[in-house]
Amino acid sequence: MPEFKSVNEFRLNGGKYFVPSVSIDCVIFGFHDNQLKVLLLKVVNYHGWGLPAGFIYKEEDIDAAAQRILQERTGLHDIFLQQFYIFGNANRCDNNITKIAFDNLQIKAKPNNWLLQRFLTVGYYALVDFKTVNASHDIFSEEFEWHDIDCLPTMAMDHGQIVQQALLTLRTHLRYEPVGYNLLPEKFTMPELQKLYETILGKKLDRRNFQRKMLSYDILKRLKQRREGVAHKAPYLYSFDLKKYSTALKDGFQSAW
Amino acid sequence: MPEFKSVNEFRLNGGKYFVPSVSIDCVIFGFHDNQLKVLLLKVVNYHGWGLPAGFIYKEEDIDAAAQRILQERTGLHDIFLQQFYIFGNANRCDNNITKIAFDNLQIKAKPNNWLLQRFLTVGYYALVDFKTVNASHDIFSEEFEWHDIDCLPTMAMDHGQIVQQALLTLRTHLRYEPVGYNLLPEKFTMPELQKLYETILGKKLDRRNFQRKMLSYDILKRLKQRREGVAHKAPYLYSFDLKKYSTALKDGFQSAW
Repeated sequence: MPEFKSVNEFRLNGGKYFVPSVSIDCVIFGFHDNQLKVLLLKVVNYHGWGLPAGFIYKEEDIDAAAQRILQERTGLHDIFLQQFYIFGNANRCDNNITKIAFDNLQIKAKPNNWLLQRFLTVGYYALVDFKTVNASHDIFSEEFEWHDIDCLPTMAMDHGQIVQQALLTLRTHLRYEPVGYNLLPEKFTMPELQKLYETILGKKLDRRNFQRKMLSYDILKRLKQRREGVAHKAPYLYSFDLKKYSTALKDGFQSAW
Repeated sequence: MPEFKSVNEFRLNGGKYFVPSVSIDCVIFGFHDNQLKVLLLKVVNYHGWGLPAGFIYKEEDIDAAAQRILQERTGLHDIFLQQFYIFGNANRCDNNITKIAFDNLQIKAKPNNWLLQRFLTVGYYALVDFKTVNASHDIFSEEFEWHDIDCLPTMAMDHGQIVQQALLTLRTHLRYEPVGYNLLPEKFTMPELQKLYETILGKKLDRRNFQRKMLSYDILKRLKQRREGVAHKAPYLYSFDLKKYSTALKDGFQSAW
């Protein structure tokens, strides 16, 4: 695989290595201490922030490309990425990052430059504990930062919309897939689990309904131990039954059809 | 938009009009009389069957392209198509339809022919009442036919896999979206609705659980009228509450989080 010494070398000559017209954007949600954030990169020679993004080598499977891109751009690896949507409006690249960067740098590129063409982009998302990941950035970015999903900075192209669509997908997945392992401590209380769901959904849930529904999924083990150091009634501790959790992740919840 | 007089003119010279590397495949499920089928086309100069497929014009939105392709290839229009997956394994085009057709016809195409390159394909699906649709076919196909999903003929490339993935998606959508309007008669019994679900899911469901769950979705109206001409206890008739049905289609079921 070729190495590029500068962003502009890549922007001018990278095209021959990649599948044309298709890019990949990764929406990495971070959760910790009841906050939901998204990982953004400040793009070189550009005024705004973007998602970790890249292209597919001509001989590369698309899922492998998504993993590689995330690793190259942010240092993150072994992240469970799920494809969620392809964004293909004709006008989504009218003011693309490369065009604006070339204008800013007064680079005259050929009109058939690969990055000045229309691109469709495939969105992938993941949900990680953002305190446990060590992100870094490569030559394409000046910095990376976790941003609150309710308060995104100036975003490149349709990247803000891509984040919103990923969030809608995550909320839909909550309906039939387990979420929470790796985000919560090994032992947690029902209110802590409820907080995770409420943060993702962006709304309050009824305590009793939540407990009834979560228990019906049959992925939790109630531990004998209770949470210590609590003034009133000490709440039960739970942990995920990892075998049942993985089965539910693969097949969906039993309580569904 | 250009018109092509023959398939081979299109195969040789069509490339300049389309976004490179990306195709669209439509999985049209047909349901009627408790049968689930999929619409396939017999491709010209090729030994197998394929999905209605095509390409995206350079200035065209992807969703508009999907609608146009379905209409051009099959005559179907106003079908509610949903994007469900992008298929992007590197080897999915190793034996693509054009390559085999060129070999069959002893056409020597240039190695950089647009259709001999690697393509990613975006899958769209729809579920329609197949007795009410009048499909036809265009110059790219010899015939069209509804095939039983359990018994597909020899399929082009990864089209069999695309059908399976669409079916999995449809089953997942059953968990949080209403299904059935336009597939059932205006008035139907609970066992008739259950049959629809069982056909899509490919398994038997418990009668009481089904009824409880369906009613909890709050999209049905129970009518005063009962089914006539039934020997024993006459079953209630239901119809969809279309206002609630549309809301649920947009927002998902209330009974979810």
